[in-house]
Amino acid sequence: MATPANATTFSGEVWAELRLADAGDVPHIHALIHQMAEFELLTELFAATHELLTSTLFPSPPRPPFTSFTALILDLSPSPLPASGSSTIASHRLDLSASPLADPEAAAFASPRGGGRVTAGFVICFPNYSTFLSKPGLYVEDIFVRAPWRRRGLGRMMLSAVAGKAAELGMGRVEWCVLDWNKNAIDFYEEMGAEVLPQWRICRLTGAALDKYKGDQEEGGGSKAAE
Amino acid sequence: MATPANATTFSGEVWAELRLADAGDVPHIHALIHQMAEFELLTELFAATHELLTSTLFPSPPRPPFTSFTALILDLSPSPLPASGSSTIASHRLDLSASPLADPEAAAFASPRGGGRVTAGFVICFPNYSTFLSKPGLYVEDIFVRAPWRRRGLGRMMLSAVAGKAAELGMGRVEWCVLDWNKNAIDFYEEMGAEVLPQWRICRLTGAALDKYKGDQEEGGGSKAAE
Repeated sequence: MATPANATTFSGEVWAELRLADAGDVPHIHALIHQMAEFELLTELFAATHELLTSTLFPSPPRPPFTSFTALILDLSPSPLPASGSSTIASHRLDLSASPLADPEAAAFASPRGGGRVTAGFVICFPNYSTFLSKPGLYVEDIFVRAPWRRRGLGRMMLSAVAGKAAELGMGRVEWCVLDWNKNAIDFYEEMGAEVLPQWRICRLTGAALDKYKGDQEEGGGSKAAE
Repeated sequence: MATPANATTFSGEVWAELRLADAGDVPHIHALIHQMAEFELLTELFAATHELLTSTLFPSPPRPPFTSFTALILDLSPSPLPASGSSTIASHRLDLSASPLADPEAAAFASPRGGGRVTAGFVICFPNYSTFLSKPGLYVEDIFVRAPWRRRGLGRMMLSAVAGKAAELGMGRVEWCVLDWNKNAIDFYEEMGAEVLPQWRICRLTGAALDKYKGDQEEGGGSKAAE
């Protein structure tokens, strides 16, 4: 496969870091969410904006990681990373000597952390709750790696790191959703030790169907229920 | 149908209140979760304890409702309720004059709020997050009404109240799960305006499969991903 003229090629050793995101990562998070929507054939649902991402993911004062909505960024560095900082969740060395990797979007996804690093993926997770266990867990809303960086163990590194964090925090479960046609993902998740639950379906109330309940809890709900 | 000898019969007007739960409600919440596990044929997953429910649902200091795990209690009162208190989420008058209701567990489920009230159900919900909308939503982990109180509009009142709260808070979605064989529930949810998403499946990492990731994020994840 020819390397696109404007691609950056990574070869030899590359250093991966999964780290807590901050507001400086919002433009890349926004672009990555859009790529994910394209991959999932769901761009008609895409309504993210920089402003909303900033205010919802990075409120002031900040919340401790994994106690509320938590965004993690995957950066790849062509040179060894400095000692893990306080924002590092996991780090990892990738050996590309056998198969160099061309990233046509490396310039567009230059990491705000500098040093030639590129942002290659992200995770968004938040605490959920199991009543049967009466324990919190972590729900992984998104885990995404840009196309050229897939099949290099980075998704496994990211999901392992989230699972490790949940286990370390004494949580009971890590859960996420998968599209039933995404066989590659299902095989990968099962190989990671996850069960894919066949019987549960997600119900969603959104848009106009949700708005019609506004103010409903004081009287409308009551009068309807009385019918 | 004969009324069990030890049942309490409710007739005429009954007043329903959906209110924020507190630690005094834990014994009833525990018993209701067990009834739900029986209904869902999932008692093998039931591991809730009073201690865990108390520490996870009612931490000190308390968190504002709907910003973290939030438990709501449905109480039914044989006499009119005082003016809504600060813990009231929704209230509702039920007319049982056409069909009196026998509750064989009324004594066991006497509400800690007194006044002849009985606890008939509960809701547990918490914030989730949609990256496509870049907005929080509410995820309804459980919504449960004890058998004798079903089909009286109380489930609708509870779900309407949660949806109303989400809409009022500017949230983008209310979501929950349903078992694919529970046609009554699916019909009810669709009639409430919800979509049942056919393609998404829940993935779950729990128990020993989760524990093996403990400590994994520092080195194990890395070395595995390098393979």
